[in-house]
Amino acid sequence: MKNTIGTSVQLTVFGESHGPAVGVVLDGLAPGIPVDEAYVAGWLSRRRPCGRTDTARAEKDDFRILSGVRDGRTSGSPLTIVIPNSDVHASDYAELENIARPSHADFTAQAKYHGFQDRSGGGHFSGRVTAGIVAAGAICLKALEARGIIVGTHILKCGGVCDAPFSDDCVPQIRLLEGKTFPVIADVGEAMEAEIAAARAAGDSLGGIIQTAVAGMPAGVGEPWFDSLEGVISRAVFAIGGIKGIEFGSGFAFGIMRGSEANDAFRMREGRVVTETNNSGGVNGGISNGMPVVFNMAVRPTPSISLRQRSVDFVRGEDADIEIRGRHDPAIVRRICPVVTCLTAVVLCDQLALRFGTDWLAP
Amino acid sequence: MKNTIGTSVQLTVFGESHGPAVGVVLDGLAPGIPVDEAYVAGWLSRRRPCGRTDTARAEKDDFRILSGVRDGRTSGSPLTIVIPNSDVHASDYAELENIARPSHADFTAQAKYHGFQDRSGGGHFSGRVTAGIVAAGAICLKALEARGIIVGTHILKCGGVCDAPFSDDCVPQIRLLEGKTFPVIADVGEAMEAEIAAARAAGDSLGGIIQTAVAGMPAGVGEPWFDSLEGVISRAVFAIGGIKGIEFGSGFAFGIMRGSEANDAFRMREGRVVTETNNSGGVNGGISNGMPVVFNMAVRPTPSISLRQRSVDFVRGEDADIEIRGRHDPAIVRRICPVVTCLTAVVLCDQLALRFGTDWLAP
Amino acid sequence: MKNTIGTSVQLTVFGESHGPAVGVVLDGLAPGIPVDEAYVAGWLSRRRPCGRTDTARAEKDDFRILSGVRDGRTSGSPLTIVIPNSDVHASDYAELENIARPSHADFTAQAKYHGFQDRSGGGHFSGRVTAGIVAAGAICLKALEARGIIVGTHILKCGGVCDAPFSDDCVPQIRLLEGKTFPVIADVGEAMEAEIAAARAAGDSLGGIIQTAVAGMPAGVGEPWFDSLEGVISRAVFAIGGIKGIEFGSGFAFGIMRGSEANDAFRMREGRVVTETNNSGGVNGGISNGMPVVFNMAVRPTPSISLRQRSVDFVRGEDADIEIRGRHDPAIVRRICPVVTCLTAVVLCDQLALRFGTDWLAP
Amino acid sequence: MKNTIGTSVQLTVFGESHGPAVGVVLDGLAPGIPVDEAYVAGWLSRRRPCGRTDTARAEKDDFRILSGVRDGRTSGSPLTIVIPNSDVHASDYAELENIARPSHADFTAQAKYHGFQDRSGGGHFSGRVTAGIVAAGAICLKALEARGIIVGTHILKCGGVCDAPFSDDCVPQIRLLEGKTFPVIADVGEAMEAEIAAARAAGDSLGGIIQTAVAGMPAGVGEPWFDSLEGVISRAVFAIGGIKGIEFGSGFAFGIMRGSEANDAFRMREGRVVTETNNSGGVNGGISNGMPVVFNMAVRPTPSISLRQRSVDFVRGEDADIEIRGRHDPAIVRRICPVVTCLTAVVLCDQLALRFGTDWLAP
Repeated sequence: MKNTIGTSVQLTVFGESHGPAVGVVLDGLAPGIPVDEAYVAGWLSRRRPCGRTDTARAEKDDFRILSGVRDGRTSGSPLTIVIPNSDVHASDYAELENIARPSHADFTAQAKYHGFQDRSGGGHFSGRVTAGIVAAGAICLKALEARGIIVGTHILKCGGVCDAPFSDDCVPQIRLLEGKTFPVIADVGEAMEAEIAAARAAGDSLGGIIQTAVAGMPAGVGEPWFDSLEGVISRAVFAIGGIKGIEFGSGFAFGIMRGSEANDAFRMREGRVVTETNNSGGVNGGISNGMPVVFNMAVRPTPSISLRQRSVDFVRGEDADIEIRGRHDPAIVRRICPVVTCLTAVVLCDQLALRFGTDWLAP
Repeated sequence: MKNTIGTSVQLTVFGESHGPAVGVVLDGLAPGIPVDEAYVAGWLSRRRPCGRTDTARAEKDDFRILSGVRDGRTSGSPLTIVIPNSDVHASDYAELENIARPSHADFTAQAKYHGFQDRSGGGHFSGRVTAGIVAAGAICLKALEARGIIVGTHILKCGGVCDAPFSDDCVPQIRLLEGKTFPVIADVGEAMEAEIAAARAAGDSLGGIIQTAVAGMPAGVGEPWFDSLEGVISRAVFAIGGIKGIEFGSGFAFGIMRGSEANDAFRMREGRVVTETNNSGGVNGGISNGMPVVFNMAVRPTPSISLRQRSVDFVRGEDADIEIRGRHDPAIVRRICPVVTCLTAVVLCDQLALRFGTDWLAP
Repeated sequence: MKNTIGTSVQLTVFGESHGPAVGVVLDGLAPGIPVDEAYVAGWLSRRRPCGRTDTARAEKDDFRILSGVRDGRTSGSPLTIVIPNSDVHASDYAELENIARPSHADFTAQAKYHGFQDRSGGGHFSGRVTAGIVAAGAICLKALEARGIIVGTHILKCGGVCDAPFSDDCVPQIRLLEGKTFPVIADVGEAMEAEIAAARAAGDSLGGIIQTAVAGMPAGVGEPWFDSLEGVISRAVFAIGGIKGIEFGSGFAFGIMRGSEANDAFRMREGRVVTETNNSGGVNGGISNGMPVVFNMAVRPTPSISLRQRSVDFVRGEDADIEIRGRHDPAIVRRICPVVTCLTAVVLCDQLALRFGTDWLAP
Repeated sequence: MKNTIGTSVQLTVFGESHGPAVGVVLDGLAPGIPVDEAYVAGWLSRRRPCGRTDTARAEKDDFRILSGVRDGRTSGSPLTIVIPNSDVHASDYAELENIARPSHADFTAQAKYHGFQDRSGGGHFSGRVTAGIVAAGAICLKALEARGIIVGTHILKCGGVCDAPFSDDCVPQIRLLEGKTFPVIADVGEAMEAEIAAARAAGDSLGGIIQTAVAGMPAGVGEPWFDSLEGVISRAVFAIGGIKGIEFGSGFAFGIMRGSEANDAFRMREGRVVTETNNSGGVNGGISNGMPVVFNMAVRPTPSISLRQRSVDFVRGEDADIEIRGRHDPAIVRRICPVVTCLTAVVLCDQLALRFGTDWLAP
C-alpha cells in the first residue's frame, strides 16, 4: 500500500519537497459532502510555518482541486488536490547531498533507492507532503462533523512545559483549539514558544508530546485483531515523519497501574452506556466504546539542527562531518497537530464507511 | 482485512476461547523453509500459563498442521495450524453474560455483533487466539534466523521492577532470552514474579512494559508514509489484547530531548554504516537503517480481577455490579512476550518478501 | 492476497488434495446469519463426484465448523470450515511425479516452488480445494436469499449439446436448478451425459460453457474502474481451475453487433427502472443496474486424460511421454456449477457489505 | 480499492471528462527506470482520436509529470501524471442530463451517487480517464522491455473483418504493431475502417474483439487461486469501459474441444521447456508457463449512437426518448488497444515486483 491507506475510503499521497507539487487523491468518500475551500485553506494555514517557532521558509498553500468535486460537493469520484511548490532554495541542500543528515532518511533512502531518489529538501520524505493530507482531512472533518464527530489535537508537552490534557468532556476543548494558531488548551502557549525559541537560538531543536481526542464516535466501530482502531490509527500516524510513539488512553502509564485503578467502570447515563473513567482511551478490544478516543504521540526533536554533527558520506563510504544550513523548524509539535487531526479524520471516515456503508456520511 | 494481516506474507487468525479450536492460516511464506514441530512447541510452551504468575487454566497446545507442509518443509501453499481447545469451564462465565466486564470487549462486542457474538471466555477476543500467532510466528522466526535476523522480547518493567534494556549489541541478549521461561535480561525475574503474586493475592492485577529487539535487519526495508516499519509493526501488535502503546527507539523520551541529544550520529565501522546511538530504534523515514529495530509496548493490567466492580447489564440497560470468578492471569507481561516476538517475525517476513521477492527467505 | 479474496467479507482457502484436509476461513460476514449444516451439505453433495460423468474417487465431504458459529448462527468472528480428506490413493500419482502433465500446473508449480510443492493429486492446485469454497458460499447464499438475492449456474453447452439460456425472468429457472443433480434448464441432461460418457470411453475429456445468473441484485453496487462488478467477479472465478474465459451479458457476441442492437433500452415498470433487453448482463459502468447479473464462463476439457501424451521430465530436463492413470472427471462442467454459484455468493456478500455496511446482511 | 489497482506496484486513476484534468498516480515502480516523455507521448497519440473511425473531439494530451521522476528516471516515489482537459463542449451534454443513455452508466451512477455525480461527458466514467492509464503504462512498458518482456494488442475482429491472430512466435508481430496507427497484423485495416465508417454513416456503432500478447514472460509468475494471472489481468481490463468479456488462450473455443485437442504438449527446446501449442494462453494453474500470455477481449459497440432510443428520465421516473448528439467514436476497438497494452504492462510490473522484489525492474 506504500503511499495509499484505507479500505473503503482511501488516501494516496504524492509529491516531493522541491518538485512541481505535492498532493493527494482521496477516494471513496460519500457523494454530496460539502467542500468548503475556505475551510480547507484554514486548516492548511494552521500547518503553515509562522512566527518564531517555525522554519523561515514561506510556504504558500494555494491548492487546486483537480477532480471529484462538482458544484461545491463531493461527486463520489476520486478527489484530487494539488498544492504547487514555491519558494524553493535548492541550493541550500546541494552541497551536502551525499552526507547523510543524522536521524533523517538520507541514508535509508539511499539503501532503498540506490541514488535515484530525489534528495532536494527531503524529496518525498519531506513534511511538505503532509500539506496534502491536511487538505484531504479537512474535507473529512466536515463530513464527520455533520454526524456529530469532532477531532482535535494539541501540544501536551514541549520543552518541559505541560498543557492540560483532554478531559472526558472534551467537546469544548476541541472547539477552543479550532480557533488557535498555537494549539494548547491551557494558558501555556507563550511559555512553550519561549522554550522553542531558546532551542532555536542554541542551534538546536525540541521534541514533545501531542494529544488527539475524537468526540462523538459511535460505539461498535473497529475490529478485534488486525483492524483494531488502535492499529489502524497507529499505522496512519506513523506515516508522519517525527512521530516515534503512540499510546491510547493511559498508555504507558498502565505499566505502573493495578487493574483496580486501570479498569473503567461502566455506568448508565441518560440511557447510554458510559465509563466513569477513560483509561482505555475509548477503545476496548479494538472497537470504539462510545467514549472519546484519546491518544498521545511522541514527537522527536527536528533532526535538522545547525550544530555540527558526525556522519558519513554514503557514496564514498567514509566518515564526514555535517553542518545543516537551510531553514528548519526548531520544533514541529505545533505544525504536526493539524496533520494528525486531519489524518485521523481520514481514518475515521474509512472505518465508518466500512461499518455503516459508503452512504453513511452522505447528506 | 479484519483477521488477516500482511501483503505478500499474510496471516489469518480464527477461533474462539471455548469453541472447538483456535488457529491460523499463514500464506505466502517461501517454499522450502524447515518446519520443526518441536521448535514450534517450544514457543507455544513459552506462551502457556505456568507457575504463580499466570492463570490456573491448564492449556494444552497440541497443534496440528492441516496444510502447507510437506516432508518437514513449507510447500509454498497456505500453512494452516489448528490448536484444539480443552479444559474449558464454560460455567465460570455463564452467570455474568450480560454484565460487561470493565475494560473488556463485552460491551463493544455487543455494540458490534448485537448479541450474536460468542461470549464464552471472551470468544474470539480471547488471548487464546494468540496461540495460533505464536505457532505461525515460530516458523517465521526460523526462516529469518537462516538469513541472520533474530527477534527477542523481554519484560522491561513490571510492578515497579525494571529489567536492563536491550543494548545496541543485542544479539547475546536475544540468545539469552530464548532459554528463559520468565523473559528478563538482568536478574530481576524473582522480584517481578513476587510483585505479580502480591497483586494476585490482593485480587488485583498488574500492567507493565515489554521491549522487543530485532537484530540483523538489512537496511532499506520499509516505506516512507503508510508502510513505514513503525506503522506495519504497530498495526500488528495492537491486535494483541492488552497492548495500549508502542514507541520506537527513545519514543516518548524524545519529548524531553533536544535534537543534539536525540540525533544518532552515523559512522563507518568495518565498511558498514552504523549509528553511534540508536535513539531512532533502527528506523529512519519508515525504512530500516541496519541498526537493531527496538520498540517498547505498554501492557495494561489484566482487566479480569476478582474485586467487585461497577458495571452495567447491557441487555437490561441498567447499572449492575460484577465479580469476575474464572481463572485469570494477574499479569500477562510474561505470556505476551513470545506473542509479540512471533507476530513481529510474521511482519518482518512480509516486509522482506515484498522488498526482495517471495524466494528471498527460501533455502 | 494469493489465497484470500474480498475486502469487507474475505474468503481464505487452504489445503491440499492428499493432505489431512482442505478448508476455508470466511471473515467479515454479518453476525446472526443462520448456518444450516444440512443446507451446506446439500451444496457439497452437488459438487461431489457421482454417476458416469465424474471421477470414480469417492469423496466424502464431512465438514466441521471450527469457529465463527454459535447456536446455529454466525457470530461475526471468522468462520472456519475444515473438510478432512479421505479415499486418497497416493500411489496413483507417485510414478509420474517429475513428468509434467500437459496443461496442468505441474511445470508452473515447479517454476514457482522449486520442488518443495506438494505434488500428490495436484496438491493445493487440486479442485478438491473448491469443496471449502462451496461450504462457505452456501452460507453466503442463505444470507443473500434473506435479502431477495438468488444465484444459479447451469451448463449452457457441453459436447455440442446446448441448454436454454437464462431469460430475463430467471427466478424460476434458478429455483428449478436448485433441485437438480445435473444442472440444466431444458431437457438436455441425458444428451450431455451421453456425450461425456463417450469422451470417457475414448480416454478423453470434454470442455463446455457454463452460465450464472444473479436475480434480485439492487442497483448501485460495484464501482467504476478497478472494483467493477465484472472485475471482482472475474478475479474470483478465474481462481477455479479449468475456467479460461468469462463474458458478461452478450459478451463476445457484442463483437458482431451494432450499437442499435446491443443497447438495452430503459423503461419504467411498476415504478422501477428496467431494461427491455439485458445485453449488458446487469452491469453498466461496473455498477449493477438492477437487472439480473448474467455471465458465461468457458471451461476447458479436463487435462487429465488417459491417452498417451508428449511431455517433459522437468527435473532431468528431457522429453518424456506420459500416461495418466488415477481417476479423473472426463468433464468438470457439472461439478463446477455449484462452485461458481457459491463463489459468486461470497463476492456479492463482500460487495453488498462494502456498499451498505457490515450489518446489511444481518437479520 | 475502487480507483486503485495492484499490490506492490499500484495505479490510482482520477479525473472527469469535463473537469480540469485526468491523471494517475503510479506507485511502487522500481527506482532508476528511464522516463522518456516522447515515448509516453507516442503511446498517448495511439489512443487519441484520429481519422474517420473516431470521435471528432480534438483531444490534446499534453501531460505533466508532477512527481516521482528525477533527471529523467523514476525516483521510486509515487509518479503522478496530470493530463489537462481541453476542447470541452459541455453544452453537447446539458439537455439530456436526466435521461439515461442506454447501456451507459448514467442510471447506475444515479443509483450510486444520488445525483451528486459529475455527469458532463460521462464524468469519471469517461474513456478520457484511460489517457492517464496509457501514460503510466508506457513507463511500465519501457521497464518491461529492459527485461525482455514486450506487450502488444490488435483488433482481431471488427465489422465482420478478421485480422490474423498472434502466433506463438509473436515478437515480430508485436514489433510490427508498435509502428501502426490502426493496429492490425494482416492487411485488413482498410476493410475494417470502411465498416466503421459505414456504421457511423448509419448513425450507429460497432463492437469487436481485440487480442493481447505478452512475449518474454518468465515462468513461475502468478498464483494459484485468487491471484491467478488470469484473475489479476481480468480485474484490470474490466475497468475499461466497453470490455465485456475476456478469454485466455483458446478460451470459449475450449467449450467444443476434447482434452486430447486442448492439451498443450510439453517439449524441451534449446534447454527450455516450451509447449507445442498454446491453447492455455501461457498460463497453467494461474501461473505463467513461459509461453506468450495471450488473451482476447470482447468490446461492445459504443453505446452513444445518434439514432433515437427508448429510455427513462431517472429524476421524474418516467419513460422518455433520447437522441444523443455530441461527438462520439463509432467504434472504440482501435483506441482501446493501447489502453489494454498499457494497463497490462502495469499489472505485469506489479506481479513481477511481488515475485522477484521491488528492485527487479531497476537498472
